[in-house]
Amino acid sequence: MAAAEEGSGPPEGQVGVSETDRVKAFSDGVFAIVITLLVLELRVPDYREGGLLTGLRHEGASYLAFVVSFGYIGVIWLNHHALLRLVRGTTLALNWINLAILFGAVIIPFPTAVLASAFSEGDSADQRAAVAFYAIAAALMSAPWLAFFSYLHRHPTLRAREVGPEYVRSQRVRPITGLILYGLSGLLGWFVDPVVGLIGIIVMIIYHAVTSEGFRAGPLGRLFPRGG
Amino acid sequence: MAAAEEGSGPPEGQVGVSETDRVKAFSDGVFAIVITLLVLELRVPDYREGGLLTGLRHEGASYLAFVVSFGYIGVIWLNHHALLRLVRGTTLALNWINLAILFGAVIIPFPTAVLASAFSEGDSADQRAAVAFYAIAAALMSAPWLAFFSYLHRHPTLRAREVGPEYVRSQRVRPITGLILYGLSGLLGWFVDPVVGLIGIIVMIIYHAVTSEGFRAGPLGRLFPRGG
Amino acid sequence: MAAAEEGSGPPEGQVGVSETDRVKAFSDGVFAIVITLLVLELRVPDYREGGLLTGLRHEGASYLAFVVSFGYIGVIWLNHHALLRLVRGTTLALNWINLAILFGAVIIPFPTAVLASAFSEGDSADQRAAVAFYAIAAALMSAPWLAFFSYLHRHPTLRAREVGPEYVRSQRVRPITGLILYGLSGLLGWFVDPVVGLIGIIVMIIYHAVTSEGFRAGPLGRLFPRGG
Amino acid sequence: MAAAEEGSGPPEGQVGVSETDRVKAFSDGVFAIVITLLVLELRVPDYREGGLLTGLRHEGASYLAFVVSFGYIGVIWLNHHALLRLVRGTTLALNWINLAILFGAVIIPFPTAVLASAFSEGDSADQRAAVAFYAIAAALMSAPWLAFFSYLHRHPTLRAREVGPEYVRSQRVRPITGLILYGLSGLLGWFVDPVVGLIGIIVMIIYHAVTSEGFRAGPLGRLFPRGG
Repeated sequence: MAAAEEGSGPPEGQVGVSETDRVKAFSDGVFAIVITLLVLELRVPDYREGGLLTGLRHEGASYLAFVVSFGYIGVIWLNHHALLRLVRGTTLALNWINLAILFGAVIIPFPTAVLASAFSEGDSADQRAAVAFYAIAAALMSAPWLAFFSYLHRHPTLRAREVGPEYVRSQRVRPITGLILYGLSGLLGWFVDPVVGLIGIIVMIIYHAVTSEGFRAGPLGRLFPRGG
Repeated sequence: MAAAEEGSGPPEGQVGVSETDRVKAFSDGVFAIVITLLVLELRVPDYREGGLLTGLRHEGASYLAFVVSFGYIGVIWLNHHALLRLVRGTTLALNWINLAILFGAVIIPFPTAVLASAFSEGDSADQRAAVAFYAIAAALMSAPWLAFFSYLHRHPTLRAREVGPEYVRSQRVRPITGLILYGLSGLLGWFVDPVVGLIGIIVMIIYHAVTSEGFRAGPLGRLFPRGG
Repeated sequence: MAAAEEGSGPPEGQVGVSETDRVKAFSDGVFAIVITLLVLELRVPDYREGGLLTGLRHEGASYLAFVVSFGYIGVIWLNHHALLRLVRGTTLALNWINLAILFGAVIIPFPTAVLASAFSEGDSADQRAAVAFYAIAAALMSAPWLAFFSYLHRHPTLRAREVGPEYVRSQRVRPITGLILYGLSGLLGWFVDPVVGLIGIIVMIIYHAVTSEGFRAGPLGRLFPRGG
Repeated sequence: MAAAEEGSGPPEGQVGVSETDRVKAFSDGVFAIVITLLVLELRVPDYREGGLLTGLRHEGASYLAFVVSFGYIGVIWLNHHALLRLVRGTTLALNWINLAILFGAVIIPFPTAVLASAFSEGDSADQRAAVAFYAIAAALMSAPWLAFFSYLHRHPTLRAREVGPEYVRSQRVRPITGLILYGLSGLLGWFVDPVVGLIGIIVMIIYHAVTSEGFRAGPLGRLFPRGG
């Protein structure tokens, strides 16, 4: 079939392979809802007449938390956007891996709220627990991304045409880095100092923001001859 | 028209038949919202200074319920994804059947919450009522799936090109199994023991997860010569 | 351009005309959210040990209201689905009309809740007010549908290829019927008896369900030679 | 590649450029959710028997706020719809700019609620603070729109085929107007009179509604020879 030869559609000849359209639509829906539900946390502060400005200033920390959460889910969406560009079709296994990735995105607001609560209201023990909780959640969130790259590496027919096998393999470095460094941040936060663990977590979010399109800009980018 | 001959579009020559694009978009939106709204149930526990870790541990059961609900709705989405791949066009009747399927997906969080409430706070009578309530809801949810397969079997022109009539007919076994075994689980839960009924329900969720792509992997899979 | 001649894309040669893809995606998102948010109203009843079944039975009326609201929004989605199949492109004016249609869909849960409240807790005066409120809202909701058909009738180049001018004109009967009969139901509910008004409203919902695909099945269907 | 020459797809030859499909789907999801969540604010008023009509009348102001918010988010969606029609592909930078635009749309309900609160419950100092807060938020919301037009002007290969460079440059006037006049409205509201600032804000919303499709209707429209 001509369409299949052009590589724009899924490889129809394989049993159990289907288009990625609905996976994208479903995933985009989930991301859109998670990022928008954050706004429900923004509330007009209680105030007496003349005290609105003071009330708004007092809420500054929760507004900052809103901005950070919005940015973090945005980063995950960008990573997911780049991820699905690597495949030309999906399978039941990939759909399950994708559901696990979405699970990680959906729960983010929860460990974030735990973290915010511990640093605004808790003591040092609470902060250690919250940093470790966040780091465990973030480390586990990396696992399905690793599974995605590994599965794609083992099933080359699912790869989009212009994506080389070396590129897929090299991308596994990113979730492995996440697993190890988030885990390390959790250990540091629990046994050494919660602030040290928190810094590790923030560094990791920035890492994922910078590498959302893969390692293309760096030396490994040469392995991805997209533009031919 | 060439496009119709290639089977990529809907069969334009039939009155009342339209593309499935919007049905997919609408359904994906509903699934995405249901699966994401679950996260609203996750709340930072109330705790005194130093008690965050204990508080988080205490909520373990509700976290488990969140994971199970997320997985169950994921399973239904996967089933729905496979379902709509069987059709090349939709009609008003199929749209109503699809609305009934979505209705079943949307209400899941409710009988789940009733079940969780009965087993954490209720007595044996409550648990019997909750298991029966859940089982009745789940059995009724199977009905529109049966209607979908039966309708598609009676309207062969709506079938996607590569789907054979035998395949569609054989798939009716799945919702019929659901109707009978969920009903049986409800009866067992009500008259014998709520835990027995609960085990029946869990077995059925696993059954739907395993067969989400149809019976392709088993002996019946030979009836579905997709890859030709 | 070949694509334009085939009529599958928008008429690119006209200034201000664009594809309907995003209008559909946005509308489907709005419908999916409204229909799913209804489930937030379903709550596990408060009960003492052993009282769950009684509690669930007591909530029967609110479960019925949920089913009716789900069905009504489903009907509007089906009408909207059929509506956008009539056009091959959209303009700024059509986008505004579509926003007004969505506005009507989004607010439905509100007059419905007012109605349910008046009949479960209010007296005769409240019921009269609620029926009149609902009927006014429903009558106003018909206005943008009328505007849609009238606009489409005046801009024949926006019509999908297989849709005839007579068909578009004849469809105006549906929103005009809605405006008049909803208005009449409101007057009957206010001046005569709220139950009479309520019956009028229910009849109108069934009317919109039956005619969601247009008058195709009836004698007017001959004006729509789609499959011709 | 033929597809690339026809300009319907993204410029595949460029590293880091991808289709806009998912950006549109994600953005439409976010807009759909924001506009629908507004309805959660509509509540059946508390009333004693016979007092429903009075209760509904009393809530008139909050219903008006709902209509205005719905319209404003509709205006932003229309602007965004027209914005993405200017591009044929997206990049990581454009995705970040788009996230910033969505951020602005998502938070709108919050400064709106602050404004409504200040004018219904606060004193003159609160109203000054609320108007300034709203104006600062609105002015900052204009910034990513300016960044979008500037980026697109510097990267002509991302422009849709029928969009001329002059058109993109001229559109920068719109967000610059927003930045300056919203800022001015905030200053007027803070230092002169909150009502004067409020009028400035309302004028700006109407300005964005009227210019949502660009300056096409005016003399600058000649710079946008879309229909060839």
